[in-house]
Amino acid sequence: MARQERAIRTRRTIVEAAGAVFDEHGYAASTIAMVLERADVTKGALYFHFPSKESLAQAVLDEQLPLGAVPPHPCKVQEIVDTTFVFGQRLRTNSLLKGSVRLTVDQCAPPGVDHTGPFRQWSEHVVSLLQEAREQGELLPTVALRDTADLLVGAFAGVQLMSRALHGREDLAHRISVMWAHMLPSIVVPGLLVGLDSRPDRGARVLASLGSGELVGAQA
Amino acid sequence: MARQERAIRTRRTIVEAAGAVFDEHGYAASTIAMVLERADVTKGALYFHFPSKESLAQAVLDEQLPLGAVPPHPCKVQEIVDTTFVFGQRLRTNSLLKGSVRLTVDQCAPPGVDHTGPFRQWSEHVVSLLQEAREQGELLPTVALRDTADLLVGAFAGVQLMSRALHGREDLAHRISVMWAHMLPSIVVPGLLVGLDSRPDRGARVLASLGSGELVGAQA
Repeated sequence: MARQERAIRTRRTIVEAAGAVFDEHGYAASTIAMVLERADVTKGALYFHFPSKESLAQAVLDEQLPLGAVPPHPCKVQEIVDTTFVFGQRLRTNSLLKGSVRLTVDQCAPPGVDHTGPFRQWSEHVVSLLQEAREQGELLPTVALRDTADLLVGAFAGVQLMSRALHGREDLAHRISVMWAHMLPSIVVPGLLVGLDSRPDRGARVLASLGSGELVGAQA
Repeated sequence: MARQERAIRTRRTIVEAAGAVFDEHGYAASTIAMVLERADVTKGALYFHFPSKESLAQAVLDEQLPLGAVPPHPCKVQEIVDTTFVFGQRLRTNSLLKGSVRLTVDQCAPPGVDHTGPFRQWSEHVVSLLQEAREQGELLPTVALRDTADLLVGAFAGVQLMSRALHGREDLAHRISVMWAHMLPSIVVPGLLVGLDSRPDRGARVLASLGSGELVGAQA
């Protein structure tokens, strides 16, 4: 049992190191040697978990949705809003998440790795939250679930990218807040607008409500 | 004079070849030899115009705004809308523009080249159009020019990126149309909404109105 726990921890160390290396160097210029050095594990341990650079990239991509998790909210549109702010907050500090996002948006796609997976998975996730929102009467009848979900995922990808390119993501929370100010009036019924919270510090407040354990996780 | 014209044409051939090479391979993996081969010019001609790979990248980035030009429209918000559709349309066929956009959004930034220039230039351009729109009474009082301009530029960057990753940009016009359906109600005064054209075929129609010369340019 202790051995199994150690294996899980080693695997996690390697995935986090790989995320940081992919974030700094991009997929093409990253090497397994760089990951080995950063993770400080044996070559045998790394190859036991990950036989190739492709499998490291896949593992980093697979972490993206779990790292975007937020507590459920009774208002499903608020839960979508919270997801963007928490994701944005973690993106400023979590190297694994940064690496995962870089693999998703860089055109230099790892051959043999489906780097578009996170786009599709996020779109599915938002569609299912919008579906719940619709059933609860939160949405305007004009909202087409897939179109709106894809717009939110695509626009968020670009907003974080522009914030990274121009300001190292320091103004990301403000930009996400602007995005919602422009999007929400065409998504939710008017009566819901006032009650929704899309202020820039929303992500920090949601993370704080999760307690210190989660906050430490977000800083990893 | 003939010699000068030939030099201008040669320079253009090289820039277009460089754009195509950067689009296919990304900045890091592109070489001057690849550009030489594609442009089919002499080494001397290439180095006369571009002493380095960085200067090629800079020239490709500098072409991005000119390639987004659209005819002026009396309604300035319509002119912004037209810019996104025409840009999207050209992005499907113009390799130079594709390469320029890839250099802008890929995190693998060419060292010594300001690859964030287009983000800032587009933002400036949209701010000045929004300023005119405001003076003409087109905008809601809640619109903050810089915030809204940055959102439009960032969201467009992400929407085209997601469309490229998932569908090779085939559905880009539809996605731009969805973006405007969600954005316009929070940007323009209600009386303007009905008159604005943000249907998916807007870009094709604007380009057609420019005549065949421009259309050929767009296919280059």
